[in-house]
Amino acid sequence: MPNIIKMIDHTNIEHNATEKDIIKTCQEARFYGFRGVDVNPQWVKLAKKELKGTKIKVVVLIDPPMGQSPHFQRVAICKQAKKDGADELDVVINVIDIKYERFSEVLADLKEICKILPTKVIIGSGYLTDEEIKKASEIVKKAGAICVKTATEKDPLDRLELKEKARHLQIMRKAAPGILIKASGKIKTLEDALMMVQAGADIIGTSSSVEIAKAYKRNKSVA
Amino acid sequence: MPNIIKMIDHTNIEHNATEKDIIKTCQEARFYGFRGVDVNPQWVKLAKKELKGTKIKVVVLIDPPMGQSPHFQRVAICKQAKKDGADELDVVINVIDIKYERFSEVLADLKEICKILPTKVIIGSGYLTDEEIKKASEIVKKAGAICVKTATEKDPLDRLELKEKARHLQIMRKAAPGILIKASGKIKTLEDALMMVQAGADIIGTSSSVEIAKAYKRNKSVA
Repeated sequence: MPNIIKMIDHTNIEHNATEKDIIKTCQEARFYGFRGVDVNPQWVKLAKKELKGTKIKVVVLIDPPMGQSPHFQRVAICKQAKKDGADELDVVINVIDIKYERFSEVLADLKEICKILPTKVIIGSGYLTDEEIKKASEIVKKAGAICVKTATEKDPLDRLELKEKARHLQIMRKAAPGILIKASGKIKTLEDALMMVQAGADIIGTSSSVEIAKAYKRNKSVA
Repeated sequence: MPNIIKMIDHTNIEHNATEKDIIKTCQEARFYGFRGVDVNPQWVKLAKKELKGTKIKVVVLIDPPMGQSPHFQRVAICKQAKKDGADELDVVINVIDIKYERFSEVLADLKEICKILPTKVIIGSGYLTDEEIKKASEIVKKAGAICVKTATEKDPLDRLELKEKARHLQIMRKAAPGILIKASGKIKTLEDALMMVQAGADIIGTSSSVEIAKAYKRNKSVA
């Protein structure tokens, strides 16, 4: 079994998260040794402080759920996140621009963002056709991102089944060889996470990290 | 058979529509006698001029596909549309706010918009659960809108089947008695339009109006 724990971006992007909640998320990340902590922009500073002295990455979610803010605004939020201490950006692609085939605008937007910090790009695969997933993944790679990611964890419109997500991961892998693949959205159990890794995921974004880590340790001690 | 022609808002909200296209849309509306013409904000002035002397309504689509612009911006676009000569607003509800149950914000936003012009509110029913459709429809009525509408015609993310749309119309009718119901999205043929009317629609939003009107006239002359 792959070391799932090291692949997890421990995610807390609840709208009503408090300072206490974010501190707890960071403490859990320290305790289990997750790959990163994924938070909304207003919590970057706090997470950086809480994770001081560790190698756990502070990852910030930019422009959910559809990446529709104007380019200048997206760039401004990313730059502020860098100032606040973020290590990585998880940026939503402009899904509507992909739908309308405004590919050069999408590429230009992402290229500039990728210069700010190592960037994972969320393509919202549940909204896209297979052809659009392929095209979006190609653009993500071309823009210089380190990773292409399926979805945001709390997207209120996401109705994608996990099986379909696994299929999307394979399209992404093929279309963007050589960069990382991150699966996120509806990954609740160790089985879910393993299914995503099986389908090609390098990183798992989930808020069920503690349950998954516990199950992983149980399974390992039995084996 | 109900007079479908008088129920149609003849819709041209193509992103790349030209002045010539909008003039053609208005001429078709005059020729067939549709209820209204539905255009993007930049075409209100032209449509008003082209429809002068008729009772055909100039309807303007506000903030597709998800109603996520800030409140002040939505209000500003609506006020400008009124200045330009619009008769009705077709405004997208903030779908994400409905998802996150920020109902008082949604109500406050729509209340102010409904004061500007007679307003139809697009709830994006394809994104919503039955319970959310009910709640959104109740808010739309409470805000003072004249009509609750299913979707925008060109929503790039709309995957709703027509049968499911018909079912949504019934939920909307029950939740918002006494106001109009408009069906839009994927209504391509006379049969589609009749199915929507059967399910409770008072107004049909479609870009296939000319084909539907022709089929209606053929059917009527045969009967």
